[in-house]
Amino acid sequence: MNIVIDAFGGDNAPLEVLKGASQAQKDFNIDITLVGDEKTIKKCATDNGVDISKLIIKHADTVIDVCEEPTNVIKSKKDCSMAVGMKMLSDGEGDAFVSAGSTGALVVGATFIVKRQKGIKRPALATILPTAGNPVMLLDSGANADCRPEMLVQFAIMGSAYMNKILRVESPKVCLANIGAEESKGRDLELETYIQLKSAPVNFIGNIEARQIPMGDCDVVVTDGFSGNLLLKLYEGMAKFFAGELKGILTKDFKSKLAAFMVLGNVKEFRKKVDYSEYGGAPLLGTAKPVIKAHGSSNAKAFYNAIRQAKQFTETKVIDEISSAIESMKEA
Amino acid sequence: MNIVIDAFGGDNAPLEVLKGASQAQKDFNIDITLVGDEKTIKKCATDNGVDISKLIIKHADTVIDVCEEPTNVIKSKKDCSMAVGMKMLSDGEGDAFVSAGSTGALVVGATFIVKRQKGIKRPALATILPTAGNPVMLLDSGANADCRPEMLVQFAIMGSAYMNKILRVESPKVCLANIGAEESKGRDLELETYIQLKSAPVNFIGNIEARQIPMGDCDVVVTDGFSGNLLLKLYEGMAKFFAGELKGILTKDFKSKLAAFMVLGNVKEFRKKVDYSEYGGAPLLGTAKPVIKAHGSSNAKAFYNAIRQAKQFTETKVIDEISSAIESMKEA
Repeated sequence: MNIVIDAFGGDNAPLEVLKGASQAQKDFNIDITLVGDEKTIKKCATDNGVDISKLIIKHADTVIDVCEEPTNVIKSKKDCSMAVGMKMLSDGEGDAFVSAGSTGALVVGATFIVKRQKGIKRPALATILPTAGNPVMLLDSGANADCRPEMLVQFAIMGSAYMNKILRVESPKVCLANIGAEESKGRDLELETYIQLKSAPVNFIGNIEARQIPMGDCDVVVTDGFSGNLLLKLYEGMAKFFAGELKGILTKDFKSKLAAFMVLGNVKEFRKKVDYSEYGGAPLLGTAKPVIKAHGSSNAKAFYNAIRQAKQFTETKVIDEISSAIESMKEA
Repeated sequence: MNIVIDAFGGDNAPLEVLKGASQAQKDFNIDITLVGDEKTIKKCATDNGVDISKLIIKHADTVIDVCEEPTNVIKSKKDCSMAVGMKMLSDGEGDAFVSAGSTGALVVGATFIVKRQKGIKRPALATILPTAGNPVMLLDSGANADCRPEMLVQFAIMGSAYMNKILRVESPKVCLANIGAEESKGRDLELETYIQLKSAPVNFIGNIEARQIPMGDCDVVVTDGFSGNLLLKLYEGMAKFFAGELKGILTKDFKSKLAAFMVLGNVKEFRKKVDYSEYGGAPLLGTAKPVIKAHGSSNAKAFYNAIRQAKQFTETKVIDEISSAIESMKEA
């Protein structure tokens, strides 16, 4: 197996990418290809004492910036690390791709270079969120601002397959994000999606109000990419807000700091629970081969986990599972 | 001034309504009218020792349930406490209305009984959220699932007027909730709204990603009622999730409990900061007279604060301010 990783994606590239990839190669005993400027990669490794002798390097001249037009990845920036890495997948030289670079460019590249799996209308960005209970997968969390009902149904199928194969959730509970629990709630998109989900090959349990998402009441929440992106980012923002408040509570004065020392273990446990890097990255579901979007601020640990996730994604054949479900719908 | 309150709205009605109203009447020296079944109100007051001797009672036969079709408030349930209370406003017998009952029914009633202010396309539910900085107003947080750009522009005007007059924010910073900061981000709704907001009589500072909302970077966030409702409810859900986690951190074992005792004051301060009841309720902006939606689980303190808010809303003439801004746009 060859996991291809964009060595120049994210705020901490390439150093943290190299560190994570080097460790992952040792632990998982797989091929890992770093894509990007060869000289810079080698110099960075040498300067920081990172052993990349077992990693493969695939040279790419440029890097696509997060501020650039996403479509550049298939136009003026065909030679960027992201495009070159994805081309390896479509050429059969790699099995999965990981990047912490521009989400927009990754979606465009995945759609037009890696290509969609047969029957899938749009790939969706699927994010796994911590909750008071089990983690929940939210999709689409930002790939498609405008969606049609049949796309949301496919998201439900893809999310269920992933949660079942990778997180080993038996018959994942699927909900539709909505402004009320009743079937009559929502916009035309939700009304029609609700009807279609009832007969889809997923364990659809109804609408979910956003209030319930952090309670861990279900395993997969489907919504359009605009709403999903608002939800995902508010989730992150609230986590940051509360982490700040918690810090305030535990550092206000000498007594608070003493108390902080006494609950340090519990705080660490909480931090681990809400730490995105534990979950690796967000899989882009619906592409012909696994593509993982790592968080823009990923550190070595996050890249390491994203590579593990890419490996699992490949091994468990989630994509075949999705294909079967899509086929079964056509036959029905 | 006569503040009219639905004595039968919310999970804790009528007792908590009576308690809050009784205290508010004493402190604010205004007329307060309780709307609902007279016998039940009197019995509840007597049974619980609440002094309602200075409050006016307006009898209403029935109550509209949160599960009912919202339009019932203007059809089969014209005699419910919510409808009767709002009728008082349109008949000039009251100055503002407060209810913790069905949001849907309140929106319908406010639109068709109290009626919209001149020039306003749709009333919006405006919620004030705590942040790491100053509180932010989010609207529409649930009155209109589908919105057009000109409606969002009006929401910006209404939110600005409210934040300026009631929370005394000088030139409130207005943002459009979006999936990216750049002007080119979002759906057609956001693209067109962005253009219109640039020339609207508000201090528009651009798009805001949901991640930044809890940071308190701006004063007013506008969005459609579907997105706004998801954001509002996730805000609530995350607050609950973290309150639970905080409790876990501080009660896990004996040492944690001891630490909890040491930071009790700080925790209380944090709780107060994120406690919705401190802010009263959510004003419905765009109606001919002030209408406040109190939280469904409001206690006496929340009703008390909602009444204070209704009083301020009336005194500060927010509605006139909104009218002037709408007029100025027509002239421009």
